[in-house]
Amino acid sequence: MKAFAMLGIGKVGFIEKEKPVAGPYDAIVRPLAVSPCTSDIHTVYEGAMGDRHNMILGHEAVGEVVEVGSEVSDFKPGDRVVVPAITPDWRSEAAVRGYPQHSNGLLAGWKFSNFKDGVFGEFFHVNDADMNLAHLPEDIAPETAVMLCDMMTTGFHGAELANIELGATVVCIGIGAVGLMAVAGARLKGAGRIIAVGSRPVSVEAAKFYGANDIVNYKDGDIVDQIMDLTDGKGVDNVIIAGGNSDILVSAVKMTKPGGTVSNVNYFGSGDLIGIPRLEWGCGMAHVDIRGGLCPGGRHRMENLIDLIRYDRVDPSKLITHKFHGMDKLEEALELMKNKPKDLIKPVVIID
Amino acid sequence: MKAFAMLGIGKVGFIEKEKPVAGPYDAIVRPLAVSPCTSDIHTVYEGAMGDRHNMILGHEAVGEVVEVGSEVSDFKPGDRVVVPAITPDWRSEAAVRGYPQHSNGLLAGWKFSNFKDGVFGEFFHVNDADMNLAHLPEDIAPETAVMLCDMMTTGFHGAELANIELGATVVCIGIGAVGLMAVAGARLKGAGRIIAVGSRPVSVEAAKFYGANDIVNYKDGDIVDQIMDLTDGKGVDNVIIAGGNSDILVSAVKMTKPGGTVSNVNYFGSGDLIGIPRLEWGCGMAHVDIRGGLCPGGRHRMENLIDLIRYDRVDPSKLITHKFHGMDKLEEALELMKNKPKDLIKPVVIID
Amino acid sequence: MKAFAMLGIGKVGFIEKEKPVAGPYDAIVRPLAVSPCTSDIHTVYEGAMGDRHNMILGHEAVGEVVEVGSEVSDFKPGDRVVVPAITPDWRSEAAVRGYPQHSNGLLAGWKFSNFKDGVFGEFFHVNDADMNLAHLPEDIAPETAVMLCDMMTTGFHGAELANIELGATVVCIGIGAVGLMAVAGARLKGAGRIIAVGSRPVSVEAAKFYGANDIVNYKDGDIVDQIMDLTDGKGVDNVIIAGGNSDILVSAVKMTKPGGTVSNVNYFGSGDLIGIPRLEWGCGMAHVDIRGGLCPGGRHRMENLIDLIRYDRVDPSKLITHKFHGMDKLEEALELMKNKPKDLIKPVVIID
Amino acid sequence: MKAFAMLGIGKVGFIEKEKPVAGPYDAIVRPLAVSPCTSDIHTVYEGAMGDRHNMILGHEAVGEVVEVGSEVSDFKPGDRVVVPAITPDWRSEAAVRGYPQHSNGLLAGWKFSNFKDGVFGEFFHVNDADMNLAHLPEDIAPETAVMLCDMMTTGFHGAELANIELGATVVCIGIGAVGLMAVAGARLKGAGRIIAVGSRPVSVEAAKFYGANDIVNYKDGDIVDQIMDLTDGKGVDNVIIAGGNSDILVSAVKMTKPGGTVSNVNYFGSGDLIGIPRLEWGCGMAHVDIRGGLCPGGRHRMENLIDLIRYDRVDPSKLITHKFHGMDKLEEALELMKNKPKDLIKPVVIID
Repeated sequence: MKAFAMLGIGKVGFIEKEKPVAGPYDAIVRPLAVSPCTSDIHTVYEGAMGDRHNMILGHEAVGEVVEVGSEVSDFKPGDRVVVPAITPDWRSEAAVRGYPQHSNGLLAGWKFSNFKDGVFGEFFHVNDADMNLAHLPEDIAPETAVMLCDMMTTGFHGAELANIELGATVVCIGIGAVGLMAVAGARLKGAGRIIAVGSRPVSVEAAKFYGANDIVNYKDGDIVDQIMDLTDGKGVDNVIIAGGNSDILVSAVKMTKPGGTVSNVNYFGSGDLIGIPRLEWGCGMAHVDIRGGLCPGGRHRMENLIDLIRYDRVDPSKLITHKFHGMDKLEEALELMKNKPKDLIKPVVIID
Repeated sequence: MKAFAMLGIGKVGFIEKEKPVAGPYDAIVRPLAVSPCTSDIHTVYEGAMGDRHNMILGHEAVGEVVEVGSEVSDFKPGDRVVVPAITPDWRSEAAVRGYPQHSNGLLAGWKFSNFKDGVFGEFFHVNDADMNLAHLPEDIAPETAVMLCDMMTTGFHGAELANIELGATVVCIGIGAVGLMAVAGARLKGAGRIIAVGSRPVSVEAAKFYGANDIVNYKDGDIVDQIMDLTDGKGVDNVIIAGGNSDILVSAVKMTKPGGTVSNVNYFGSGDLIGIPRLEWGCGMAHVDIRGGLCPGGRHRMENLIDLIRYDRVDPSKLITHKFHGMDKLEEALELMKNKPKDLIKPVVIID
Repeated sequence: MKAFAMLGIGKVGFIEKEKPVAGPYDAIVRPLAVSPCTSDIHTVYEGAMGDRHNMILGHEAVGEVVEVGSEVSDFKPGDRVVVPAITPDWRSEAAVRGYPQHSNGLLAGWKFSNFKDGVFGEFFHVNDADMNLAHLPEDIAPETAVMLCDMMTTGFHGAELANIELGATVVCIGIGAVGLMAVAGARLKGAGRIIAVGSRPVSVEAAKFYGANDIVNYKDGDIVDQIMDLTDGKGVDNVIIAGGNSDILVSAVKMTKPGGTVSNVNYFGSGDLIGIPRLEWGCGMAHVDIRGGLCPGGRHRMENLIDLIRYDRVDPSKLITHKFHGMDKLEEALELMKNKPKDLIKPVVIID
Repeated sequence: MKAFAMLGIGKVGFIEKEKPVAGPYDAIVRPLAVSPCTSDIHTVYEGAMGDRHNMILGHEAVGEVVEVGSEVSDFKPGDRVVVPAITPDWRSEAAVRGYPQHSNGLLAGWKFSNFKDGVFGEFFHVNDADMNLAHLPEDIAPETAVMLCDMMTTGFHGAELANIELGATVVCIGIGAVGLMAVAGARLKGAGRIIAVGSRPVSVEAAKFYGANDIVNYKDGDIVDQIMDLTDGKGVDNVIIAGGNSDILVSAVKMTKPGGTVSNVNYFGSGDLIGIPRLEWGCGMAHVDIRGGLCPGGRHRMENLIDLIRYDRVDPSKLITHKFHGMDKLEEALELMKNKPKDLIKPVVIID
């Protein structure tokens, strides 16, 4: 089959590969809509996963089941499904403890384009279909639903980890697609005032759409100073980090009240250490929790998020700024993620 | 001063009483907008507090500070304030444990028209003003803000106690003013599908406005059966009880999945026992938590809820179906709460 | 093979049955030590599961693996293992939500002597061996470890559900084997004063051994009155119910402070309703949580509990008052559970 | 009155100062037993609070009430009381949010020898006596109870913040007096295996007394390597930091499983940043929570901890290695804390 792959560090292209095979609990899926992710850029251009050769890219897909293993009971060929980026091994100690994302290893619930080929092929393999796929309702377009696989679950997880009290003041740092979903997630979890930190006009407009009341632009000065000004020096209850370098945690802690939470869903890609500011962290005793986690995946999560769309709680389609048709447009779509033109939030490739 | 009071069980009327006096931490407030509550009806016509004579009624008020004690630092005469129904003693063991509602006794954080005179007078007394009052922002009308004092904090507390997971299916039983705020609260805490149980057309329309996706009417059959049908026999994650008799808990538990929560903010007014259905509660082992609590009061709570209005998360003004002007309309407004005409959700009396 | 079974309601005896067969993820285990449980009495003599014929009894066993399926990786024939009473289907929505006890149905994680044959046979079947068995350390005797399967995990779960604050005052109602483990569990979770409710001298002595500071005997008067006296009228923070009829919840709620928790691990066997006392529950608003759940099972739980024995946190062997040798003593052991002689807490049958 | 004070950075001595005066809610207390703390060393010799002159030292005291304000209801002259190191302003937003330690400012619940004079005088002042003092039971010696004020509440808070699951494997880094109470606290919250990191023989012996099963000595190699070896490469569930420099967080995160918690009660005294190891923290996504907080103070906390002594859950007297008699021995006792002789854990000065 044909697939779009990382050929080596810094190189991508179409390759031919064997069609994957389903084990007894697995499914083979044909993509209907996929989306490239900043993680794909990290993988290819920063070598975040090391040097990989001919590894099919992509972990955001909605598709049609074409084959299921003998033990799969809830899905059959022809079913349209949402495929989460994270497809855990549910029979694992980490899953029992409530952290399926880390089943059989740190972050190891993330398999696509990591431990195995990704979703940018004519077909792809899904482990434990009954536990990891979710039926796509007819009234949700595949290109909308593809935002569920990673963007929504990740941004919302930032809000979940933040332990938001009803009416709390929340900062979202970063308003790329994940950050925008963190804004939407903060609203969904009951935030009062939401302050979004970002600068690109297309994202600023979307941030307001998703619930941001104030926008802070780092170009206008130190973001901590700006946020302390906005809050009359009180600081905020919760900060969600969805962008920035490893020094962003310093700013986040500085703007958080004692008893607040800093939650991270950003991928920190460089540096040995991520620094916490000692004094503002109360010399270790400020009761400012610092949390961060890989997004939840699996079927139950996808079904819950699907309900948030079906029952009019959030509309992720606003994230999609570019739509392509046909698998051969994958390179162009990925290119967009690399170059980040002014009008980009997230591209989708619809595969007919 | 003139005040509207319970004269005895079943009797109300205007009386003359001494103007209250502020202790060093207290404030005297003149009401700008007040609202009668179903609790006032319980008090007067059901004798819920016992037989009281010449007790001023009312616990929902927005007002103007006219006097403060010597130790009050954050409020001064002329300030417009939201006064929560619950004004705890913050220096109490229960407050330290996180339950200020029960400071110095079960439910004893509720003082207005209970341990002391209520707010339906020319003036009323507020204990610990710095901790229990909140400044009313200029852009929120007093008659809107009066919904904060009890309706919003109570309904939202139902949603808080329910431990709603993002995307969960939630039932709200009862869609009076509190129940409607439970619907709004469930949405604010991240519910996916919200099923509201009620029948009055004015409330049904408001329930949809606040986020209900489905309406179940008890006149159409057993509500458990209807809800099991709506959920393909799975049941729901959370139930918020905001209305019903003491047997409503039986229905609530029956429709809740193992691991779910039933949360109550209803006042149960009769019967010795509130029954849990033994079998459906897993003979005691279903992991269906049964919780219930008096609404949070105090300044911090009011400020958080004010932010939910200011930052466009909820609009409580939709609750107000009847507006009166002048204190002499209090009897008429209370009468409405007693008779519940078809078009009533909640009346407000604006006092100029 | 030979097995000890329920022949019909009220009748038990030895029968011959086919040896069970392991599916690819399963194990067949030969018991080394087993213990009859009050639940077996409910099953046989009260028909709690309905009328069953030739169903092998028992759900508490430590054994030796004799056969494993092709997909089992962590266990092999000859391994000595602890087998929890609850062996969930880990690939289930309930497990994902954190309630594996209810995988595929309310209480359905309980399979032994319920959905399938129990452990009182020459061999028994364990579903999903890698997820549900735990290795027995050499320095723990099988007859001690058999207390882990149900008694420890259940009693401790009562303490877990009770949300005990460090130094809290906790009541344990019932001091049978589960109640004694609730006492031990309350101590392990940080209780200060522990008040145990019971009367049998053998249990009273064991309750003190496990950490009870006060004993309240229902024969000395109403237990609520006694506990209110002991606490100077304040009531207690948490109550764990591990015994009693369906009216015990009334007493439990009456003695609990606002903001406290009543946790149940008792099997309620009769009555349509379990009553909550309306007034003391604050007419629905006391913030007294009422919780109850089937004990956690599975490998991770057993491993955690094994560590509590290995690292000297608890010694369950004090529960064992009667030791028998040989499978043919099962009837005598079960008889003890039915007749409850004065000196009984829990019998064990060691099978060589 | 006579008092032992910081004269300036690096200098201590006895001074004469005015006897403090009680406001209406306050008490004046005469110390019966006091203890110097490592924090006093930080204050005097490291200038942790800045340069202070003639500030009375000390924040750990048990004493006798000699005077109370007009509004104090639960204490009277002659009462023997435990005085927590942290005496919050309970009427504050931070207290309402559950963080009284930070009432009116980060760490500002700590007043003794910080915002006002400490307890090393003939008399000292306690704000809000009814909320911040606790009655000392007759059967607890003042020198034992003085361990409650800071050591027990701090060490135990480390265990509380760590969210310990029953049977979890917990590391305590540092086994000074606070670290030892973290070990005891981990046992009290249900830890299975406890691994203590330290080297001084007197502390090692005490660590075993309080529940440590394994001792790791940094002199024997990297502590992460040693702990990974002890746990067969799995790592641990929870780490409590009660000692070490600002790079200790690196080790703590490295040894923690995904989904685990690192909890800090150590005072970090130097460096701009406290570093989190990026890769082992899953590039920000490991679900390893990093928490840290100032110990809880106030009456309710002290009463809970008193119960842990009264009801035989913990015996803090093992911490006390040196007893002095008479206020004039304060300098000698403080000297000990500075020089840390081999046989020291904690000195107490008994004042007759």
